[in-house]
Amino acid sequence: MKALRYKNGSLSVSNVPTPLADGEALVRVTLSGICNTDLEIARGYAGFEGTIGHEFVGVIEEVGQAGSLSPSRQAGSLSYTAGTRVVGEINAGCGECDLCRSGDSRHCPRRTVLGIVGRDGAHAEFLKLPLANLLAVPDEVSDERAVFTEPLAAACAILERVTITEDSRVAVIGDGKLGLLCAQVLATTGAQVTLIGKHRSKMAIVERRGIESVTPDAITKLRGIFDVAVEASGSPSGFATAVELLHPRGILVLKSTFHGKTEIDAARLVVNEISVVGSRCGRFAPPLELLKMGAVDVESLIDDRFPLTSGVTAMERASQAGVLKILLRP
Amino acid sequence: MKALRYKNGSLSVSNVPTPLADGEALVRVTLSGICNTDLEIARGYAGFEGTIGHEFVGVIEEVGQAGSLSPSRQAGSLSYTAGTRVVGEINAGCGECDLCRSGDSRHCPRRTVLGIVGRDGAHAEFLKLPLANLLAVPDEVSDERAVFTEPLAAACAILERVTITEDSRVAVIGDGKLGLLCAQVLATTGAQVTLIGKHRSKMAIVERRGIESVTPDAITKLRGIFDVAVEASGSPSGFATAVELLHPRGILVLKSTFHGKTEIDAARLVVNEISVVGSRCGRFAPPLELLKMGAVDVESLIDDRFPLTSGVTAMERASQAGVLKILLRP
Repeated sequence: MKALRYKNGSLSVSNVPTPLADGEALVRVTLSGICNTDLEIARGYAGFEGTIGHEFVGVIEEVGQAGSLSPSRQAGSLSYTAGTRVVGEINAGCGECDLCRSGDSRHCPRRTVLGIVGRDGAHAEFLKLPLANLLAVPDEVSDERAVFTEPLAAACAILERVTITEDSRVAVIGDGKLGLLCAQVLATTGAQVTLIGKHRSKMAIVERRGIESVTPDAITKLRGIFDVAVEASGSPSGFATAVELLHPRGILVLKSTFHGKTEIDAARLVVNEISVVGSRCGRFAPPLELLKMGAVDVESLIDDRFPLTSGVTAMERASQAGVLKILLRP
Repeated sequence: MKALRYKNGSLSVSNVPTPLADGEALVRVTLSGICNTDLEIARGYAGFEGTIGHEFVGVIEEVGQAGSLSPSRQAGSLSYTAGTRVVGEINAGCGECDLCRSGDSRHCPRRTVLGIVGRDGAHAEFLKLPLANLLAVPDEVSDERAVFTEPLAAACAILERVTITEDSRVAVIGDGKLGLLCAQVLATTGAQVTLIGKHRSKMAIVERRGIESVTPDAITKLRGIFDVAVEASGSPSGFATAVELLHPRGILVLKSTFHGKTEIDAARLVVNEISVVGSRCGRFAPPLELLKMGAVDVESLIDDRFPLTSGVTAMERASQAGVLKILLRP
């Protein structure tokens, strides 16, 4: 099968053996999405070699012997069979540690992560994941919407870590893919959300959903008024901006996993008693529900589509400034 | 009266007019303690000019007309009269904003702070504070112990922001004054506390209270096992050490208000979903109770005592490496 692989410092579409189900589920990928993490991996920052990609929608091709499946780590249902249209949670835990036994393998120290840590990824004709990681996609949700489940889950994950209500005032910094999804997800709580962005065309996507958006030059008026500020810009300056926007004892949510060091004014965090909360992967049930309800506009984030065979070109396109989601079709 | 003042870039003991009670309480200072914040101010880092110092014990000399006193901001009791031995919370709020009305002026945007922001401080023969800021010192607590109420309150403040129980595993980084107090306070919860220090004589202070202490070279064995890590070293490297010690979703408490920037690996906070919690001033009732019960050894932290008239020399002594608490007696 064809797969977009990063190896020895370079990216290429290669022919590799189709994986065996081998106790997991073999999924035929119908669509995959390029994430900034893929770009970081292709720059050699993540130490991963193999097939990249972790955002996908596909169809179960084959379910291996269930020997290695542990019901305790199930995210979805073990009853899916070949032909089921699915998305898949990307962390595959050991199934044995306390975290996995509690049903959440996202911090299992021995986990593999689809296309990121020790497990070939989704920019390929086939991938494999434990059956328990898969969730069926509701009929109402098209492939082009379902492929956003993973990044949308990352946005929903904020709500696992921080209480946001309709009384909350929330700022989202960054109008890239992540910022646009976070702003829309957090607005579903009824909170008053303000997106800080630089690109009118991107800000328009959330404005059409009734979300306020402003450019950074308008920030002076917004200083110290937010309960929660989400750093989704992927830029070190986003951290300082978030601190500016928060009132004392406000909560700064870190979503970007950008490479490199961020300089912070720790004394300011202490004096204003700010909390900084790191947030990563989310469960897939909440975003699937949002997609089913049509509560979030994801289609407007699609900037281009490429065949998997043009994966290298697609990655170049995805790395250009201002480009949002690029999809690959095997 | 005499006062240790920082002005025009230099520190001196000057003769200044004794303050008028003027709607507040006039307190005759019997003992004051030098804090690292005093040293930061004397380096010009804090933008404060005037009488420095915010750790004190004293006796109420005079209570001004209660016109400007607001019961809503009371920390102590309004019934104290001249002659009462007191300590005092250092934030004096406007009395009118929502925060002050809720009884907590620590984040009032118009607050003054004793010896730190817009209000002359405690290294003087007299100081003034709103009567509502004062708390009577129990007879069982000597002046040399009561003068630790403010820094001990700062240690207790962690418990306002983070839940720590007897099941918690807590690391405290730094064996300076703050670290030694934090370790002892947090150990009163029954949590298993480990102090990371570099000075055997200081580590012995907490070891005598049954608290484990280790040097940084022993950290490799402790990686990823702590629920909470308190950065009290005042060194930028303390942040990275704290992150190393925490398990995924652990909580890093920032206590030091040191000057300058700290470089952090934001991606690691995201991947491990670490929370960073800034913590500053605490209420005085909890530390007074700990002092009354003898639950914390503060006397061992006293390295030297100076008359107020030798305040400049005392500050030099306090700034020497390895020196713990220096007290001033007017």
